Amino acid sequence: MDIQEKALKMHEQWKGKIEVISRASITSKDDLAIAYSPGVAAPCLAIKDEPDKSFSLTRRSNLVAVITDGSAVLGLGNIGAKAAMPVMEGKCALFKTFADVDAFPICINSQDTDTLVETVSLIADSFGGINLEDIAAPRCFEVERKLKERLQIPVFHDDQHGTAIVAGAALINALKVVNKKLSEVKIVINGAGAAGIAIAKHLLAMGAENIILADRSGIIYRGREGNNPAKEEIANVTNHDMQKGKLEEAMRAADVFMGVSSAETVNKDMVHSMNKGSILFPMANPVPEIFPDEAFEAGAYIVGTGRSDFPNQINNVLAFPGIFRGALDVNATEINDEMCMAATYAIASTITEDELNKDYVIPLPFNTRVASSVAKAVAKAAIETKVTR
Amino acid sequence: MDIQEKALKMHEQWKGKIEVISRASITSKDDLAIAYSPGVAAPCLAIKDEPDKSFSLTRRSNLVAVITDGSAVLGLGNIGAKAAMPVMEGKCALFKTFADVDAFPICINSQDTDTLVETVSLIADSFGGINLEDIAAPRCFEVERKLKERLQIPVFHDDQHGTAIVAGAALINALKVVNKKLSEVKIVINGAGAAGIAIAKHLLAMGAENIILADRSGIIYRGREGNNPAKEEIANVTNHDMQKGKLEEAMRAADVFMGVSSAETVNKDMVHSMNKGSILFPMANPVPEIFPDEAFEAGAYIVGTGRSDFPNQINNVLAFPGIFRGALDVNATEINDEMCMAATYAIASTITEDELNKDYVIPLPFNTRVASSVAKAVAKAAIETKVTR
Repeated sequence: MDIQEKALKMHEQWKGKIEVISRASITSKDDLAIAYSPGVAAPCLAIKDEPDKSFSLTRRSNLVAVITDGSAVLGLGNIGAKAAMPVMEGKCALFKTFADVDAFPICINSQDTDTLVETVSLIADSFGGINLEDIAAPRCFEVERKLKERLQIPVFHDDQHGTAIVAGAALINALKVVNKKLSEVKIVINGAGAAGIAIAKHLLAMGAENIILADRSGIIYRGREGNNPAKEEIANVTNHDMQKGKLEEAMRAADVFMGVSSAETVNKDMVHSMNKGSILFPMANPVPEIFPDEAFEAGAYIVGTGRSDFPNQINNVLAFPGIFRGALDVNATEINDEMCMAATYAIASTITEDELNKDYVIPLPFNTRVASSVAKAVAKAAIETKVTR
Repeated sequence: MDIQEKALKMHEQWKGKIEVISRASITSKDDLAIAYSPGVAAPCLAIKDEPDKSFSLTRRSNLVAVITDGSAVLGLGNIGAKAAMPVMEGKCALFKTFADVDAFPICINSQDTDTLVETVSLIADSFGGINLEDIAAPRCFEVERKLKERLQIPVFHDDQHGTAIVAGAALINALKVVNKKLSEVKIVINGAGAAGIAIAKHLLAMGAENIILADRSGIIYRGREGNNPAKEEIANVTNHDMQKGKLEEAMRAADVFMGVSSAETVNKDMVHSMNKGSILFPMANPVPEIFPDEAFEAGAYIVGTGRSDFPNQINNVLAFPGIFRGALDVNATEINDEMCMAATYAIASTITEDELNKDYVIPLPFNTRVASSVAKAVAKAAIETKVTR
């Protein structure tokens, strides 16, 4: 039985990968009077008098909504809200498993930016954080920006920032192995959707100075015809030499390649044209931009993918559980750049200098130290930047 | 420590009365590949091809949203969405405890009818049923009606139908005790909000022929100045003699009194003016329309309240868990009148003829037979009326 058949069978057995249970034991009329009427009036009135008490008297304190519109689900594309649910439930299961964060999936049956923003805003008081998931670019940027403006709880689009944080952590370690400096390397990012643009911004914030993005039409430069606002914005702070042309031209003499595009868009010639000690993170799922064996044959030095069957798996599960754990622990009102940066370095530093090698630049997904170390770093950054309630 | 203090303390300890857990055990990369990427693509695509598979491949199969706008919370009134959450969480805890239904609380930060309908519609694909809760009348009627029209899953406003079902069940048994017929008794309902109007409609459907409703302004009759549409509609099918005046005039020579109004609105003289073998269900919470001891002193024969410290507690928990259990078990697309009627008789018949007496006309809340017997009856009615998927 292949993995898809097995997964379908397991999903039929699970009948849902999440479950809502009661934390209150209700077995007598005294229990009922405390957990429900008439005793429940006391916490209700306490919140009415002091609204922030909803963070200590209800499950908000530990609860994240995993929200999608089903427009960019895994590699499946725009399959709609209803069909996206197994992915959202999976995400919620990972939140609980990796960081004891309660997460609840909500698939919104609209792909209109303002409708999404309005709907999430209307239900946000029931949650302590919002994880946006699998919403197509460029809509996802505006949805996130507007929600961050309106809400006083963390809003985090994992496809953007989670990916950027984990890829950034892997890059920190990979550069140590090849003994190059982030400020000096030439980095090519293929794919300029949610993840690609977020990676570029994050690497710039980390100190990268020479980044080129490419998409299906080739290298992205300032003023390129057909640039959407997000691409034009990122073109303003990358590709300073205004290079034009195809991906293969961008990759010539590059030190780092990061792929968040689609299967098999990179060939051996492109890899061969890169600088010595090249680092490639072809992260397209399930089929990467180039398979590791091919990349190595063409001279790559370090390769990381999204897959679990090769070394250096770049997996968001290293970031999002710990990030929300840390944010919830200190009652953060947002997840800001400093918190994302703290998460990046926390993930990278989970691997000691002794352990570090070309096949181990990023911790394994089931390394239990990661989530707690990320949570601690994120909480500290939240306190230092004064975004706690 | 009084009950309110104790409840506040327990709510601080609980930090939420619900919790979202993972049903999938994820402890290895193989688990991850089945529950999440890449295996999860299989159930996603299965639902995309056949949308109703969301009822077997996701938690929809067992999941009810408990939705409020915080406009009529318990006896506390319009305390808003955020402050309503402890009640909603309590309701969810009861769903799980009494019928193994997963229920998730969502407080919507709007009290506009169309906004409520739109928001619930947009997230409805994530759930197998919608329980509306503590939404003020008359808005609740329109919200429920519009949602029932739009959604293909059960929508149930518990304050209306749950109360009507349990009060109806208690009345069936009480009438047996006093040996009167539903079609022949005079019934007075005080309170014409969500519960009062729903009780009137349900008793009419059960066969009652002589019902009079009253509200703060007194007896409700056809064409009365200030009737909202819901009151005018119910006035058309009750109070056939067009009686006018105060509540005390309605109660004269009545056989049954049902109160869903407010504390101490009934006095001993009113009870004294009722027929012999009178049945009173003063259900205002926590202080009933008249206390049982006073009612008995004035000649009442059977008294039931909403309180657990007197016999005959009329508590919605006897209805809603089993109703949704039954509806979910057969994948019902709605909860119709026949299913509500089946629930009523199932609750009433949990008490055998031998057990039945004036202080035991309704099962105790913790009678474990009730939910399963209600579920069975509701599922049967759903199948018979062909509202299953």
